Amino acid sequence: MPSVAARVARVKAVQFNGARVVLSEVPRPVGPAGHALVRVSLAGVCNTDLEIVRGYMGFEGTLGHEFVGVVEACDDASWIGRRVCGDINFACRTCAVCLAGDFHHCPSRTVLGIVAAPGAFAEYVAVPCANLHPVADRVEDSQAVFVEPLAAAFEILEQVDVQKSTRTLVLGDGKLGLLCAMALATETSELTVLGRHRRKLNLVSSVAHTVVEGDDLGDARFDLVVEATGSASGLDVALERVRPRGTVVLKSTFAKRPAFDTNRLVIDEITLMGSRCGPFDRALRSLEEARIDPRPLIDDSFPLSEGPAAVARASERGTLKILLRP
Amino acid sequence: MPSVAARVARVKAVQFNGARVVLSEVPRPVGPAGHALVRVSLAGVCNTDLEIVRGYMGFEGTLGHEFVGVVEACDDASWIGRRVCGDINFACRTCAVCLAGDFHHCPSRTVLGIVAAPGAFAEYVAVPCANLHPVADRVEDSQAVFVEPLAAAFEILEQVDVQKSTRTLVLGDGKLGLLCAMALATETSELTVLGRHRRKLNLVSSVAHTVVEGDDLGDARFDLVVEATGSASGLDVALERVRPRGTVVLKSTFAKRPAFDTNRLVIDEITLMGSRCGPFDRALRSLEEARIDPRPLIDDSFPLSEGPAAVARASERGTLKILLRP
Repeated sequence: MPSVAARVARVKAVQFNGARVVLSEVPRPVGPAGHALVRVSLAGVCNTDLEIVRGYMGFEGTLGHEFVGVVEACDDASWIGRRVCGDINFACRTCAVCLAGDFHHCPSRTVLGIVAAPGAFAEYVAVPCANLHPVADRVEDSQAVFVEPLAAAFEILEQVDVQKSTRTLVLGDGKLGLLCAMALATETSELTVLGRHRRKLNLVSSVAHTVVEGDDLGDARFDLVVEATGSASGLDVALERVRPRGTVVLKSTFAKRPAFDTNRLVIDEITLMGSRCGPFDRALRSLEEARIDPRPLIDDSFPLSEGPAAVARASERGTLKILLRP
Repeated sequence: MPSVAARVARVKAVQFNGARVVLSEVPRPVGPAGHALVRVSLAGVCNTDLEIVRGYMGFEGTLGHEFVGVVEACDDASWIGRRVCGDINFACRTCAVCLAGDFHHCPSRTVLGIVAAPGAFAEYVAVPCANLHPVADRVEDSQAVFVEPLAAAFEILEQVDVQKSTRTLVLGDGKLGLLCAMALATETSELTVLGRHRRKLNLVSSVAHTVVEGDDLGDARFDLVVEATGSASGLDVALERVRPRGTVVLKSTFAKRPAFDTNRLVIDEITLMGSRCGPFDRALRSLEEARIDPRPLIDDSFPLSEGPAAVARASERGTLKILLRP
């Protein structure tokens, strides 16, 4: 008769051990009641993963929060065999914040691959059933793996009333900047994207009204500026480019506390709005209806066993999306 | 026959000459067409005046932007003899921003006693007729002189939808903090004011639900936090005290660029809103209807000829409103 230990299946996972990214063998994850065991089909490397490797959030363990997979086990049998992606905020669903419906801000939440929850750079990941979103057949895995960052991009549209005529500037042509541009272009026809790389800007040149390589915006001012450069100086550019009483959406998190011109904020009565995770349903719908196709952002994919190399590749300057295939 | 120079009446004015505050004799101001000549009855010293003396805005000339007075000359004779206060933003009224109705943000505006317009610490001040607001008889000069800063306090209610149940925290018990508290108390019954001076907090203890001397707020979180401490560290306290998806209104301007935790802004999706000048009509109505009486904030008044001493007194730690009597 096998020992208890021997009966626990061991699976591959890409982990951050506090010093570096390593390939590990870990017990197959088991969530508490109400969790599904998802066999991961594809996972994406996000800048947040790279920040974690630099010490952000003090997280150690299995990395990764962008994934698509198939439910292999679940108390609710109706999920089994379904292709899903999953909201990364694991809320308690009992506190006052949750009861008010704001699961993304539950004060005792764990966050997949970021705060106290083993991530999706693994053969299997445990996700609360309440966080699962089924993926329609017409949406490919290589599209569905973008749902989490695309939802974060759509969050801007949940926070700000964007009209066709809203003069909008996206600062940054990295992964998140491009997804923000794609999401915003579904609402405004007055979109400008400012970046440093012609190759990346070309990916949104068909949906944006204007793309600008470099920094020459003339004297243009915008109703809405989205800061997605990942650089603290981007905030100053945003404040220079937004009109009085306009809105700046801040997507970037920074290792250092940036100093910026708060007097400009006061004198011009600017609204600076932090923006994080967003609506999975809206992101999925945009993929189902083929209004957005993020696949051109994929620069490369690696087998899970080459996870450390994949993370290193994603860290190289100018790289867009790197995927992992468990 | 007197020379042209001799025919220009000279009047007293309190000026900042780039180095210090001095009493000067200056030509009686004459505005271009559409301006009224107002004989100043009472003027108030604002923290912005004190910042100007420290170099803010690089302004030199006659200080002062809080005033009440009587119109002595005007192309539109209907104004003559009326008691008025005046909006301090002198807009061009022809540019796109003005034509959209946003006179406070006209890019070519001058600002009374702050940007290229001689201020109200003088026997006379020239103000565009479009900026004048008549003061009702029942409102005393010592109340009307508060209309400008009180309007700035009411600006918060123009920017944020404050309900009876909106848990609101005002940080700071200086002049502006107390006026913000008074304005906010007209809408919310869940107001907390945090300050350092029992004497000042007592001035709002009847309208606020809670006043706190020191910094012990327990673990309370607020829907809305108004930063009016004038200290850069107030912004950090505001970000700690606002709930996720809550709003921080920034009233203070700072000589230095403050660094603060923008990650908190992003993770908690906080809205940080700069707030400056506000609606004179709303402030006047609150005085007419006796919903607010700012007179307890007056700490002293000086004749105009003692203007430099008045500004020095206003600079002393703990001083509330100092008035000037031309």
